[in-house]
Amino acid sequence: MKLGKVVGTVVSTRKDEKIEGLRLYLVQDLSLDMKEKDSFVVAADAMNAGVGEIVLYASGSSARQTKATDGRPIDAVIMAIVDTVDNQGALVYDKYTAG
Amino acid sequence: MKLGKVVGTVVSTRKDEKIEGLRLYLVQDLSLDMKEKDSFVVAADAMNAGVGEIVLYASGSSARQTKATDGRPIDAVIMAIVDTVDNQGALVYDKYTAG
Amino acid sequence: MKLGKVVGTVVSTRKDEKIEGLRLYLVQDLSLDMKEKDSFVVAADAMNAGVGEIVLYASGSSARQTKATDGRPIDAVIMAIVDTVDNQGALVYDKYTAG
Amino acid sequence: MKLGKVVGTVVSTRKDEKIEGLRLYLVQDLSLDMKEKDSFVVAADAMNAGVGEIVLYASGSSARQTKATDGRPIDAVIMAIVDTVDNQGALVYDKYTAG
Amino acid sequence: MKLGKVVGTVVSTRKDEKIEGLRLYLVQDLSLDMKEKDSFVVAADAMNAGVGEIVLYASGSSARQTKATDGRPIDAVIMAIVDTVDNQGALVYDKYTAG
Repeated sequence: MKLGKVVGTVVSTRKDEKIEGLRLYLVQDLSLDMKEKDSFVVAADAMNAGVGEIVLYASGSSARQTKATDGRPIDAVIMAIVDTVDNQGALVYDKYTAG
Repeated sequence: MKLGKVVGTVVSTRKDEKIEGLRLYLVQDLSLDMKEKDSFVVAADAMNAGVGEIVLYASGSSARQTKATDGRPIDAVIMAIVDTVDNQGALVYDKYTAG
Repeated sequence: MKLGKVVGTVVSTRKDEKIEGLRLYLVQDLSLDMKEKDSFVVAADAMNAGVGEIVLYASGSSARQTKATDGRPIDAVIMAIVDTVDNQGALVYDKYTAG
Repeated sequence: MKLGKVVGTVVSTRKDEKIEGLRLYLVQDLSLDMKEKDSFVVAADAMNAGVGEIVLYASGSSARQTKATDGRPIDAVIMAIVDTVDNQGALVYDKYTAG
Repeated sequence: MKLGKVVGTVVSTRKDEKIEGLRLYLVQDLSLDMKEKDSFVVAADAMNAGVGEIVLYASGSSARQTKATDGRPIDAVIMAIVDTVDNQGALVYDKYTAG
């Protein structure tokens, strides 16, 4: 999985019938020190995530293993909202004290 | 999924029988600020997209989850036409006011 | 799919039994302006392509969706010979007039 | 597979029900000379690995081939703890003498 | 598939039960002119390859299509030993005259 930050929304009315009802988020990748990188993905939301939240997303066929995405043409899914990240024993992210 | 812009068409008469009838588009990747990047993909069109449109495409096995691409040797499919993209609360793309 | 140019051949006598009989081509990736890039792949040939031809290849599990590659340890397959590519309304490649 | 070093932990309480009970590790990629690279992944732990250990992780659908990850939205799994790595005849890593 | 050179071995005693008995090789990627690149992969050996040999490896789910790797958490497999590579009509590698 990758660590990302939900930064926006993609809206589409003309879309494959199988993705009806799925929210599609713009998710920016994070570096190890929790900074936004240039790379990003558009991920389906299986977690009722909100803009600004730090999340994990899964890619490829694994993105179709949630109830929300099973059998759909979805190659990235938000499957967890992150509470904390620690790196080398230091707490580098804590949802409850962040921003 | 990735955000892309349909910029052209690839035509092939000698092709695997399973991809007969599929339109193949040249889709250029977009950055977070909606600029064309150097990278691109050739994607099957499951949405009757047109040249110039901003789309989402799915890659890998997920690209075979539309009716148009099921069971075919297709690793990228356009599965949505984008109406709007917002990033950090700002509308960075709107189909109806764009260029 | 990706646009590539067939530039050579890889020959192997000691190989997995499931890939017996498949021709393996060296395929160099092309940029949007149809220039050869440094990156390349070794792809199975499902199309009787020839050295020098511009082709499309599919990667990953989609590479196993042709008759020639079904169930085989093949992660890239040439599944179309390209006739023409147009980009922004300009014909950037035409098989019948190309070098 | 890729060689990585377990450097931290990601904790999530709001997550897809299918990943309940899985430990999620921050795994930094290693170069051929066993130095930490900037790239990393969040991988499920199928091996009771510990922070600081050198591991192998598998990605994509292969990450769902362990008992711990079968059918789950997991695209990276730690499936081996590394004892030794040799490169060109030189022992470049030995778990029992390292750090 | 990718062209690689077997440069070393990874040994693990604590590993997923499904990968017992598989040899794991350090395989360095090669450029089009057959030079070693910085990138590498750890691949299962389905071919009794030896250190120093030039091989092809398949990645992703295709890496599970050999008898040795079927159903296992393996995302890269050596599935051919390369005899010769020609590029633009020139023989750039020949196993029997190489180094």
